[in-house]
Amino acid sequence: MINVGIIGATGYVGEELVRLLTSHPDVNIALLVSKSFSGKSMSDVYTNFYALSNLVLEDTDINAIKKKCQFVFLCLPHGESIKIAPQLLAENIKVIDLSGDFRYKDATVYEEWYGIKHTSPEILKNSVYGLSEFFKHEVANTNMLANPGCYTTTSILALAPLLKEGLISTKGIVIDAKSGVSGAGRQEKLNYSFCETQGNFSAYSVVNHRHTSEIEEQLTTISGKAVNLLFTPHLLPIKRGILATIYADIKEGVSEKDIYSAYENAYKDALFVQIMAFKSLPQLKYVVGSNNCQIGFDISKRTGKIVIVACLDNLIKGAAGSAIQNFNIMNNIEETTGLPQVAWYL
Amino acid sequence: MINVGIIGATGYVGEELVRLLTSHPDVNIALLVSKSFSGKSMSDVYTNFYALSNLVLEDTDINAIKKKCQFVFLCLPHGESIKIAPQLLAENIKVIDLSGDFRYKDATVYEEWYGIKHTSPEILKNSVYGLSEFFKHEVANTNMLANPGCYTTTSILALAPLLKEGLISTKGIVIDAKSGVSGAGRQEKLNYSFCETQGNFSAYSVVNHRHTSEIEEQLTTISGKAVNLLFTPHLLPIKRGILATIYADIKEGVSEKDIYSAYENAYKDALFVQIMAFKSLPQLKYVVGSNNCQIGFDISKRTGKIVIVACLDNLIKGAAGSAIQNFNIMNNIEETTGLPQVAWYL
Amino acid sequence: MINVGIIGATGYVGEELVRLLTSHPDVNIALLVSKSFSGKSMSDVYTNFYALSNLVLEDTDINAIKKKCQFVFLCLPHGESIKIAPQLLAENIKVIDLSGDFRYKDATVYEEWYGIKHTSPEILKNSVYGLSEFFKHEVANTNMLANPGCYTTTSILALAPLLKEGLISTKGIVIDAKSGVSGAGRQEKLNYSFCETQGNFSAYSVVNHRHTSEIEEQLTTISGKAVNLLFTPHLLPIKRGILATIYADIKEGVSEKDIYSAYENAYKDALFVQIMAFKSLPQLKYVVGSNNCQIGFDISKRTGKIVIVACLDNLIKGAAGSAIQNFNIMNNIEETTGLPQVAWYL
Amino acid sequence: MINVGIIGATGYVGEELVRLLTSHPDVNIALLVSKSFSGKSMSDVYTNFYALSNLVLEDTDINAIKKKCQFVFLCLPHGESIKIAPQLLAENIKVIDLSGDFRYKDATVYEEWYGIKHTSPEILKNSVYGLSEFFKHEVANTNMLANPGCYTTTSILALAPLLKEGLISTKGIVIDAKSGVSGAGRQEKLNYSFCETQGNFSAYSVVNHRHTSEIEEQLTTISGKAVNLLFTPHLLPIKRGILATIYADIKEGVSEKDIYSAYENAYKDALFVQIMAFKSLPQLKYVVGSNNCQIGFDISKRTGKIVIVACLDNLIKGAAGSAIQNFNIMNNIEETTGLPQVAWYL
Repeated sequence: MINVGIIGATGYVGEELVRLLTSHPDVNIALLVSKSFSGKSMSDVYTNFYALSNLVLEDTDINAIKKKCQFVFLCLPHGESIKIAPQLLAENIKVIDLSGDFRYKDATVYEEWYGIKHTSPEILKNSVYGLSEFFKHEVANTNMLANPGCYTTTSILALAPLLKEGLISTKGIVIDAKSGVSGAGRQEKLNYSFCETQGNFSAYSVVNHRHTSEIEEQLTTISGKAVNLLFTPHLLPIKRGILATIYADIKEGVSEKDIYSAYENAYKDALFVQIMAFKSLPQLKYVVGSNNCQIGFDISKRTGKIVIVACLDNLIKGAAGSAIQNFNIMNNIEETTGLPQVAWYL
Repeated sequence: MINVGIIGATGYVGEELVRLLTSHPDVNIALLVSKSFSGKSMSDVYTNFYALSNLVLEDTDINAIKKKCQFVFLCLPHGESIKIAPQLLAENIKVIDLSGDFRYKDATVYEEWYGIKHTSPEILKNSVYGLSEFFKHEVANTNMLANPGCYTTTSILALAPLLKEGLISTKGIVIDAKSGVSGAGRQEKLNYSFCETQGNFSAYSVVNHRHTSEIEEQLTTISGKAVNLLFTPHLLPIKRGILATIYADIKEGVSEKDIYSAYENAYKDALFVQIMAFKSLPQLKYVVGSNNCQIGFDISKRTGKIVIVACLDNLIKGAAGSAIQNFNIMNNIEETTGLPQVAWYL
Repeated sequence: MINVGIIGATGYVGEELVRLLTSHPDVNIALLVSKSFSGKSMSDVYTNFYALSNLVLEDTDINAIKKKCQFVFLCLPHGESIKIAPQLLAENIKVIDLSGDFRYKDATVYEEWYGIKHTSPEILKNSVYGLSEFFKHEVANTNMLANPGCYTTTSILALAPLLKEGLISTKGIVIDAKSGVSGAGRQEKLNYSFCETQGNFSAYSVVNHRHTSEIEEQLTTISGKAVNLLFTPHLLPIKRGILATIYADIKEGVSEKDIYSAYENAYKDALFVQIMAFKSLPQLKYVVGSNNCQIGFDISKRTGKIVIVACLDNLIKGAAGSAIQNFNIMNNIEETTGLPQVAWYL
Repeated sequence: MINVGIIGATGYVGEELVRLLTSHPDVNIALLVSKSFSGKSMSDVYTNFYALSNLVLEDTDINAIKKKCQFVFLCLPHGESIKIAPQLLAENIKVIDLSGDFRYKDATVYEEWYGIKHTSPEILKNSVYGLSEFFKHEVANTNMLANPGCYTTTSILALAPLLKEGLISTKGIVIDAKSGVSGAGRQEKLNYSFCETQGNFSAYSVVNHRHTSEIEEQLTTISGKAVNLLFTPHLLPIKRGILATIYADIKEGVSEKDIYSAYENAYKDALFVQIMAFKSLPQLKYVVGSNNCQIGFDISKRTGKIVIVACLDNLIKGAAGSAIQNFNIMNNIEETTGLPQVAWYL
């Protein structure tokens, strides 16, 4: 049993992580931290935890964390993890951070896109980008893991194998992504109120969403080629799920078979990536509730483009689930432990 | 490991049962039967099962069932289980039936409300009504269990303790129940199409829904008193969940404390019934995705009525989950095994 | 053309009123007041008004109101109308107030349920309760109209005719009401955020919602009998619409025909009340988008109760639409002018 | 008053057309035809028409149509209008057809994409494509109008001005379109059932949706250039609305101002096309319920692409509303008559 702390347990990602970890056989939830609700129990804030009335929320106290936890998940807003992570690492506590604070190799890129001064750039050298489908060895051997963003995971899993094998152009890629509202976190903004969201659909942060930089950096790292793409997020009137429709120019002579072969090469050992039969496209109901990412595609000969559709549950494979997957790898636990493999459908 | 068969695996209840059983440590799914999709795999019909491509759907074949299964769940339309159950029982296969076919003690009541001739009335004598919160001993010792309906479970769990202890009047009870659309099953009716349902709300089968008879019969059995009530179902524009708002005349002098005491007496050993703090009422998001039933209440002194709000997930505690709970009890397995205790919330 | 001002134009009721009034042939929108957005145009706040870019929002200025308007609608939070209405009436400007400030005859009842000191009790003597189906003559002859609440309108229209003719008991009435989220207004509360509301369903303000007092007072006024009832509101995961399921003890010997006759007597001249054929119940999609209130019923002989289902669009017949209906009557304009008679359905 | 017939009055487009026409001051609804419901009244099928109980549905009878109608709207499935239109035109009845039957200049293109033999190719020569923003003169002078598809209208209005002025490349255009479920019509398919659709999101007919050909043909007609594009439709879990996110390579040196100028040139007299301020993007709630099409854009210098977002209500500007707009023009009635200019927002 590993003594685990979750810092930021009452945001939507934190709550999902606690929910999943309560049925993880190798995890002892040793500490839950919530600034806003310290002193209350988890079931006071989230009544779905009624059966687990012993989960108490505490205030942030580094000493308590050090004493109680061997492993810590940070589910904090961007800019908060920079402050805490160094202190935990100094005590040999392993850390998975779910914010954007440690995802870039270069602090200046972070500072440009997040508008926050990075106060621990030295950690960036050792932090590992937690997309285990491509960096499993590094994940297994790190103390400091930066968990990828939800849009990012969807996009990279869909594109990286094809870029790596040179099957599509590195220029002119368009990622048209659609996300459920939980991606915005638990907040009281009018924009995310029921009346403003239900029955509506809209694009946002067009041409300059910060995940663009994360996607480009990782695709370049994995494929070894400079990649230039356009990423457009949209808000779906649903709670969970991300689906990205991706357009790229396919290189001359590349066949359906070549595409399958690239995905097969990349994901033959990936337990949560599922490649659909040709022309069978994934839908959100096939993945929501699970840790799976599904990918399908079709080829438009008339226009010379491939259309890739990829989707996942933004709170699970896009956040809490992939964090647990990384936790398992970092602790040499069977990778699927504690992770739902069958989506809810309903 | 118990070899389990699910007959009717591709309806919504069947699918949910298969989904939950795939992570039940004591269950080997030995056989899945689906008339409509025999020959296909479960993942062909429900792509959320992609990771479990070995689950094959077969046609109904009593010999195959007998050979492969020690335990069978029947997820069939009303009128179908009567035909199959006797053959399985004759081979000493234990059966849980999720239809209405074996819920009544008296075949004529069934025939009146369901409009179907009951061809196995002899089984009704031995079949046990699977509300384990009240009939645990009987459940543990039967080979033939009739799993309760979803509206019924919600209503009985809310009312039985108060009727049993004589705290409310047996007359004039009103159950105003609201259900998600999955309660109607997987079907192509215009009434359940997205455009006709979304943003809409309606009552149906007012004054004569068949569950009225099931609720009255069981409340009378448990409390020992003739009960006369009015049950009104409504269709909510959501996928899962039942919430019932129940009105009853409270007897003079009965206090909040008496009500709590009655619930406590009834449910002190019930692992999936959760009584809320006074004036704290349950909501669907606290239970959907789990096997829990939550119950809260308030007292209106001005009108002499108690208002009870009870809710559960119609596909889990109202069907597949309670069936697994009964399966555990029938097989002397720890009652919570394989059952989700924390609702999804999102 | 009547010069009309709308004070509080950017709440949901205000916006709906402006939307409807823009196609009212006898109305000139002379002034729109919005504290939060003064200086902006209506289309800056509500982009659906793009085609009407000349609608400018101004700050509250009593002199401007007096100068520009012959008629004023107050769409303000409770407690705000008390301050403004007397000043307008003093200048012979006719007023329709959509808050609860002038709905009671007795200021102490208001103060008890709203927790606000009533500073203009003298106006209560002359203000008219704007349920024109029962008080048309008074509506036609007043300068100060208090528009009814949305839950209230639904409940009174369903019950008043039966109480008036003594067909149902005045005791033990239960109103189980369900409302869309727009009933809570335009606000940033977590409770009304998409993620907390979608797929959820819950009861609130059980046993003590303030509309209870308004419903009882008006039913007593109309029927001449003391009425005692229990009102339970619920929150539906939809934007618009209220549906109430109402339970009452039917007097012995009262037939279906008697019920129809009572409704017919009450509503033969009511242009927006629609009584359904026996056992045909209204649904929200039949009324949302229109100014109609639909009422249906069934009788449960087994329990001696009548079940009435009534519904309407909370923003139209429950607020802005009935205000326009009253405006038409107060100005001797054909009653249906500017009011939608066919619901959207989709 | 023009005597108007609607053939196919009980599909979703037919119902919307009847709803809108009931408040059109120059229209007398002379005949409603519905094969499925002949003999019933409109309010039997759509209870939202309760107030208009005199609208009776009749069977298809060409003689009756000829006798009663001066103008006919055909809201029939593809392949049905070919049979009826020639008979009506022969009697000098003006026709607007809302199907795909008369949208192409060349019958073989129709036959290829619709898989139906075109039996009236001679009519194609005279039929006018009813996008009045570009073909107003032709619309005003025709007896036979082919109303555009909903996806098509959105796409052409967004792209045509830029192609016409040569501001974007004619190659590599990607239209990522998302539609509400009513676009599929009123049908009982499992795919469009509430449980299969709510909370879900999916792409369909990827790379070969038939609207591709209609969009390309019209863009080529308007711009005078061969256009090659990729169109991907998706199904949104909402009832109404289409939003398309469109990607095109912007020509070197083209500025934001040039784009505005092109839209201004094209739409200075268009009463239902609304161009948003730079970087202000339209959302479905700004247009649903109205006859407006809103268009916004942003430019990505990093990738050399323009991102255009365009949206409308698929049942109104995408079908019934644009048909009425064309009807007005064909009859020399003020173009906005009977058409909602302010969207519902809620």
